[in-house]
Formats: sequence, structure tokens, C-alpha cells
Amino acid sequence: MLSSSLIPANSTSYAIGLDLGGTNLRAAAIDRSGTILGRTAGRTHFSEGREPILADMVDAIAGLRERFGVGNLAGIGIGVPGFISLREGIVRNSNNITAIENFPIRDELSRRLNAPVILENDANAAALGEHWMGTGRGINDLVMLTLGTGIGGGIISDGRVLHGVNGMAAELGHITVVPNGNPCGCGNLGCVEKHASATAITGMARMLGLGDLKSSEVYELAMDGNERALRVFQSMGESLGILLAMLVNTFNFPLYLIAGGVIAGWDLFAPAMMAEAKRRSFTLRTTDTRVERAGLGNEAGLFGAAYLPWCK
Amino acid sequence: MLSSSLIPANSTSYAIGLDLGGTNLRAAAIDRSGTILGRTAGRTHFSEGREPILADMVDAIAGLRERFGVGNLAGIGIGVPGFISLREGIVRNSNNITAIENFPIRDELSRRLNAPVILENDANAAALGEHWMGTGRGINDLVMLTLGTGIGGGIISDGRVLHGVNGMAAELGHITVVPNGNPCGCGNLGCVEKHASATAITGMARMLGLGDLKSSEVYELAMDGNERALRVFQSMGESLGILLAMLVNTFNFPLYLIAGGVIAGWDLFAPAMMAEAKRRSFTLRTTDTRVERAGLGNEAGLFGAAYLPWCK
Repeated sequence: MLSSSLIPANSTSYAIGLDLGGTNLRAAAIDRSGTILGRTAGRTHFSEGREPILADMVDAIAGLRERFGVGNLAGIGIGVPGFISLREGIVRNSNNITAIENFPIRDELSRRLNAPVILENDANAAALGEHWMGTGRGINDLVMLTLGTGIGGGIISDGRVLHGVNGMAAELGHITVVPNGNPCGCGNLGCVEKHASATAITGMARMLGLGDLKSSEVYELAMDGNERALRVFQSMGESLGILLAMLVNTFNFPLYLIAGGVIAGWDLFAPAMMAEAKRRSFTLRTTDTRVERAGLGNEAGLFGAAYLPWCK
Repeated sequence: MLSSSLIPANSTSYAIGLDLGGTNLRAAAIDRSGTILGRTAGRTHFSEGREPILADMVDAIAGLRERFGVGNLAGIGIGVPGFISLREGIVRNSNNITAIENFPIRDELSRRLNAPVILENDANAAALGEHWMGTGRGINDLVMLTLGTGIGGGIISDGRVLHGVNGMAAELGHITVVPNGNPCGCGNLGCVEKHASATAITGMARMLGLGDLKSSEVYELAMDGNERALRVFQSMGESLGILLAMLVNTFNFPLYLIAGGVIAGWDLFAPAMMAEAKRRSFTLRTTDTRVERAGLGNEAGLFGAAYLPWCK
């Protein structure tokens, strides 16, 4: 065993990633090889407002930096929900954490930590995490869909997050899959997130007279052979298939990942999804395009945030 | 005036671009500033088969090279319809020019010309041409849709053509806009090219009892106020709007270009297209995204082909 003083500094180089989710805050120190050196979580309820959130974020990051040293810190990355104005470091339209909206969060965190901070949308960070250490390892071009309350999208092109000109690329949850489909808060009808998210599953179950169930309960019913619950997953798979075909026809990337708790029901919706997507995409039918479950679960965003300082 | 011998060689550097269309072949020598130094066209009917096409391509390129000199030739680029296997330099599934399918056309042309040749899909080349010298000049990220018999797509991301892993990216004509819409030769129902191309216009006119008209004749009728002809353009605009919203939500690029002869009817379909797209894209509604007619007409592919040797 080498004593730590004999290990070259770059071999213990690490980054701090922070994932600001809709319900909690998690941070980790992760080294270049993807090993989590240490982790921490916030304690604030987001309803308490901006200042406690900011203090929690600073505490989490500063605590990890103290434990693992300033000298080896490659950088700090933060994943947050909402549209990010990359140039200004401001979160716009964060539906879940309105307290951090339209505030120079990047610069304020940077000031308090006396270190640069990189801000990224949480779905983009999750895609980056899968590219770095998950199912997308070694794949430079991939699209990831995270199915939750809504549907988040992240696009990795040539090893980098595709941001678009306003940081609003990969708003894949709001792509139309049913032209006169379910109304969406964004003003559209038939957004895929109103037909294939966890929320859509509960909504469709209600429409079919199954009552007010959680998506996991609809899943249980379907696994027990309930016809109506099975049709919910069938419909959800078909909607996802239309989106998937669109993505394959647009990008011809080698890998498409589906993430979120809903992938527990993969066997219930994936056959319909693949059948629909293949029918609608010549490319999918004729190439060895992979469509798979993401591998990092709810750690993807944390890994992606930590990878931000290293990302080209 | 300087005599030509005093002009540095690189100031007269030029590339040869060749656009192999569905009905004819055009080539041009174009300098780095986008000035066409000279042009030529092929004489072969594509029905005559592969060898006459190849001979025509070689003649056109060799003739231009002879006129403008080998020393200043930066490279040779060729745009062809169909899926291109970039690694192998082979055209797969070229619906229009089957004679060149599944044949090592790039290497064979390179051998006959004794010079490297760069192959590109024609719709990609057209997008690149608009990026270089057309409406997309100075814009590094854009999507271009060419409406003709089908709908061709080209995506320029960070100044380069987005190819995907098999060279099959930007197959935008086969994106579903009407889940149970018109059947398409690709096996899908409701591909946008069956709802918004020149072919779709003639098909919809026929369905509405207007008879067998060319798309230009449907346009004339609509301009004369014919209600049914107007509805054809309305429907076509709405279908295009669904695709456009999808592209904006996916890429958040600053510019989307529409090309093809059908843009003569811009005033007839663009209002419906924009209304539909805005309804379906928060990003389009809240940013200064540009949606415009392409500027180079049927010269875009020629410019794009010539630009291939200079493209990063």
C-alpha cells in the first residue's frame, strides 16, 4: 500500500456533483474513475424558500470539499430542474423549485463557495451521467428519456450535452405524439408526457375506471393480469414508441435510454413501444440501434453533475 | 489591378461540387468566398444505367478541374440522394437513382479522378449550402426541410452535418405527424412527407375532388380563392407545424429553413404552420427562433457539395 502522500495528486482528483431534485438535494464527491468518495444530503424543505436552499447547497458542497481537499478538486457541477440560461447561470421556469427561478444562482453559489460552479438541467445531467458511468458508457451519442411526473430529455452529441441556443434543447416531454391528445400545461395537446409518464399512467388508469392509483399500483394490477391496467401500459408504450421513432429518424444515434421509476414496468410497455417505433422508423428496423433501460437509477443526475467539470 | 500571377494561390483556391439530382447532374467550381467560377451539367438520362452516370460525373468534374487548375483545387464534394454509408462511400436505398445503389461510388470516382472525393446525402448537402452561403450564413446550428416529392432533412450542428452512426440522421420526412395518417412507402402511417410534400398537396387535392393537378396548379387555384385548394395548404401547413414544433423542442436551434418549389406557396401555408408550431412549442413561443424560406433555391445542394472539402 502506498501512503497517500505518495499517490500523485491527479490520481485522486475528484469533482463534486450536486443534484437538486424536486423533493431533495444530494451531493457527492466522485473521482475521475467514477468512484463515489463520499456523499451528503440536504435537509431543507423546498417550501422554505430560496435562502435555506442556497445555504443547504453551499453546506453540502463545502462539507465535501473540506473532507477531500481543495487541491484535488477538479470542479463543481450542479443539476437543477428547469430551463437554464447557460450564459447567465439562471434557472427559468423550474416547475418544481420556483424559489430558485430567475435568480443568478450560479454566480451566487460561486461567490459563496469562492469557486466556479457549472449549472446544468437535471435531465441533461442524468444523460451525461449515463454517458459517463452508466449504460451509455463509451457511447458518445445518445438520447435519454426520464419518465416521472413529466418526461425529461437529455441529448448527448459527440460526448457533449446538446443545449441549443437558449439551453432549451431536449424538451422531449413536450413533443406531440397525439395531435389532439391530452391537454398539457405547456399549452399543447398530446405532449408525450401526457401519454407516457407516471402521471399519464395514473391518469389513464382513472379514465378506465381503476380509481385513484399510484403508477406502481397500476403496475401491480397489470402484473396480476388486469386487462385495463395492461391496456394502460400498452397505450403508454405506443406513445413512447412514436417519440422513439421520431428520435431515431432524427438522430440515428446508437443508443436510446429510458429511465425513471416507471421502467420497473419495462416488460409491460417495452414490447408495444418497440413494435410501434419499428413500424415508424426504417432506421430502427434496419440498424442495430439499442433501446435500453438506463443503468444508474436516480444516481444518474449526481454522476452527471460531477462529470460537468470534466466534460469537453 | 494585380496580374493573376501576383495573387496568392490560396486566394483563388476553389472546390468542385457536384449535385446528382433525381433528374439531372450539375457541377460547379466555387471559390472559398462562394463565387461560382464555372459550371457544367450532365447529359445522361439516369435510366441509361450506372456506367453513363459515372462517366458523366467524371467528365463534369475533370472538365472543371482542367479549366481551373489542379494546384488550387481544395477538394471535390458530391451530393447524392439516398442513405450514404459514409465509411464505405456507398449509397444505400437511393429511391431516385437506383443505378448507383450498393456500389462503391466514392472509391470508384476517386480512382477515375485520381483524387479524394467526399460523398454526402443531397438534403444534408443542401443544408450545408444554406449554412455556408444562403439564409443560414453565419448560423452554426440549423435544420433545413426540403419539400419535394418527399421531404428531405438536413441538420447542421456546430457547423457540421449531423450524420448519426449509420449516416441516416435527419430522415425528417419519415417522422410521424398523424399517427393513423396516410400510408408511406417506408411502412409507416402518417409520415410528414405524406402530409406536407408536393406529392401530399396533389394527393390531398385529388381527395377533395379537384382532380389530377400538379402542386403548382393547386397553388394557382388557392391563389384564386378556391376554398378546397386553400384547405390543402392549410392542412399541409398544420402538418409541417407539428414537425417544426418537434424540431424546435428537440434542438432549440436558432434557425429552421424550408426549401423546395413548394415554398412559392409560403403565404398559403406558413400562417397555419406557424400557428400550429407555436401552439406545440413553448420554446418557439418564447424565444426569437427564426423559421424562414431557404435562400439558394435549387443551388443549395451544389454549394453544399462544394463546401464539403472545407467543412470542419
